[in-house]
Amino acid sequence: MKQRLKELVPEYIRNLKPYEPGKPLAEIERELGIKRSVKMASNENPLGPSPKALKALLKHAKCVNVYPDGGCFYLREKLAKKLSVRPGELIFGNGSNEIIELLLRCFVKPGDNIVVSQYSFLMYKIIAEGLGAEIREAPAKNLGHDLEAMAGMINDKTRLVFIANPNNPTGSYADKRQLTKFLSASPKIPIVVDEAYFEYVEARDYPDTPALKKRFSNLVTLRTFSKAYGLAGLRVGYGIGNSDLINYLNRVRQPFNVNSLAQASALAALSDADHIKKSLTLNRLGKKQIFESLAKMGIDFMPTEGNFILLKVGRGRKVFEDMLLRGVVVRPMDVYGLPEYIRVTIGKKEDNRKFLTELASLLGKS
Amino acid sequence: MKQRLKELVPEYIRNLKPYEPGKPLAEIERELGIKRSVKMASNENPLGPSPKALKALLKHAKCVNVYPDGGCFYLREKLAKKLSVRPGELIFGNGSNEIIELLLRCFVKPGDNIVVSQYSFLMYKIIAEGLGAEIREAPAKNLGHDLEAMAGMINDKTRLVFIANPNNPTGSYADKRQLTKFLSASPKIPIVVDEAYFEYVEARDYPDTPALKKRFSNLVTLRTFSKAYGLAGLRVGYGIGNSDLINYLNRVRQPFNVNSLAQASALAALSDADHIKKSLTLNRLGKKQIFESLAKMGIDFMPTEGNFILLKVGRGRKVFEDMLLRGVVVRPMDVYGLPEYIRVTIGKKEDNRKFLTELASLLGKS
Repeated sequence: MKQRLKELVPEYIRNLKPYEPGKPLAEIERELGIKRSVKMASNENPLGPSPKALKALLKHAKCVNVYPDGGCFYLREKLAKKLSVRPGELIFGNGSNEIIELLLRCFVKPGDNIVVSQYSFLMYKIIAEGLGAEIREAPAKNLGHDLEAMAGMINDKTRLVFIANPNNPTGSYADKRQLTKFLSASPKIPIVVDEAYFEYVEARDYPDTPALKKRFSNLVTLRTFSKAYGLAGLRVGYGIGNSDLINYLNRVRQPFNVNSLAQASALAALSDADHIKKSLTLNRLGKKQIFESLAKMGIDFMPTEGNFILLKVGRGRKVFEDMLLRGVVVRPMDVYGLPEYIRVTIGKKEDNRKFLTELASLLGKS
Repeated sequence: MKQRLKELVPEYIRNLKPYEPGKPLAEIERELGIKRSVKMASNENPLGPSPKALKALLKHAKCVNVYPDGGCFYLREKLAKKLSVRPGELIFGNGSNEIIELLLRCFVKPGDNIVVSQYSFLMYKIIAEGLGAEIREAPAKNLGHDLEAMAGMINDKTRLVFIANPNNPTGSYADKRQLTKFLSASPKIPIVVDEAYFEYVEARDYPDTPALKKRFSNLVTLRTFSKAYGLAGLRVGYGIGNSDLINYLNRVRQPFNVNSLAQASALAALSDADHIKKSLTLNRLGKKQIFESLAKMGIDFMPTEGNFILLKVGRGRKVFEDMLLRGVVVRPMDVYGLPEYIRVTIGKKEDNRKFLTELASLLGKS
């Protein structure tokens, strides 16, 4: 069967590394004899979910025997109003990752290519490779996206361009002028701007892509409830785009892709301006706190428009492992081609302090 | 852009009907001026979720800011033990629908075909068409699967066979002898047995596919927590198969496809034998109640091994609409090629009575 299976599966899928399920943090802690580690590895909201979202979740919990609404009706209506777009210009996914997948499945076939930037979010490449697409990766500029270099990589086989803005893991961003210039010059293929972290952006020249969509009908914006809204565990993200384009994605979307508690919680979270405000304030202060300490320690770091910081520590994988033993979980960056770096999620004041103290001690900077 | 998009999307995706989001039941009720309709349309568990699952859900709710465990560690360990399979022989999905999709994406490319039965679950065909596959549909026998006819449809371009057992919407099933014969004769391509309703089966000659897997390494079993376990709103299903085959599916699976509350609830539900027992008893009694009444009314129906009944009412779509106005939601079967039929989910005693009373009144049988 092994050999026969191999013949049945396309080479580009066989070549993918199968996902190796890691153990949950609780299991690792038990094995290492650590308790209450501080998790600063996945860019989650350290304040937890919005209290309004949690209340809505608890209210709907007893009805989980019923299938979710396949059209995300109430969430769609409310979000369309908030964003000043039409309901048909929105699509919801099992996390925005699913919308990345729907885009790739609709527009990319074996032999086509996609254009991404070096050091950008890995999921674009992984999914595209599983569809037999070629990845054209534009070299980064100061680790961030170089939109001019990306434009130069587009050819007649390019079917999608992914711009993470701000980019994970570098924290860099493209400003309105750069993005508009890129869109003006690019051919009429879908240009996807992934704004998973847009709520955290402080830069004043950050583009308003739902508004730009009126001018550029090939622009697709991706956003999520996993980061600032604190609903990563529930899986809900969305795309904004021209309704013709969205309709193609709907053709390959499964009807019950967004679970009912995700819908109820996201709907309620949209009304919780207070929780978003608190989360952004915490992030702003935490960023300042970490930046100041890193500067004092003489550790290089990237400016960031997200809720995470990329910093240069030498042997990133080793620092990750040592920090884990000290009860702080960060993310090594070797898989992104940045072996000298780690990424840390900005946390609560006391968590940031713990991270900084342990890092200083580990690197002999205290 | 419209024309350009059309050129970019493969014809087999363009030809799919985009999903038209219907309104949620609460909206329809409001428009029709109906209150508290009885929903017997989606084969959900009328007793609700398992109380143990609900308790686990509420316990984990405040942590939904954290990403789900990408490997479903605890659920996997427990289920593997329960089924006497290895953890690596299981894959979890955002509903078992997602596993159907992963199978098709791994094994089917444009020009390949899949073999299904007439009147079987529609999702196999819809997803396969979106991948450019040909659908080879074997004629049904007494509305159910004819495994011999299905075997005859397999050719050298066949990449997957789907056998829904019991089948939705007909309630029919393949027994152990039929399935073993089919497996013995079939080529070494994945044979998928979709057992979404297996908990409800009363037939004593129903096959034990997780055990048969030892003999037939190309056998894949699909199951779900959406039906008897009452967790449809949370989206969690699973596949059981040879670990080489499961590993191919894992290559195209997204790491956070199963949300954290689904994992916690499903894990707890596995321990709630009492809730399953109550659910099956309710179903058995409800089936008897409905069968007896339908027989008295002289309405033709199919025997069923599921939690739903297919019955012949004449103009199915019209009966569905009229029943809706009477506050009972059933499912018209024209989309399955059965325009004279409706499908009703077996509910609580009083719901069944309401359904039977309204149906009798509508059809002039009272």
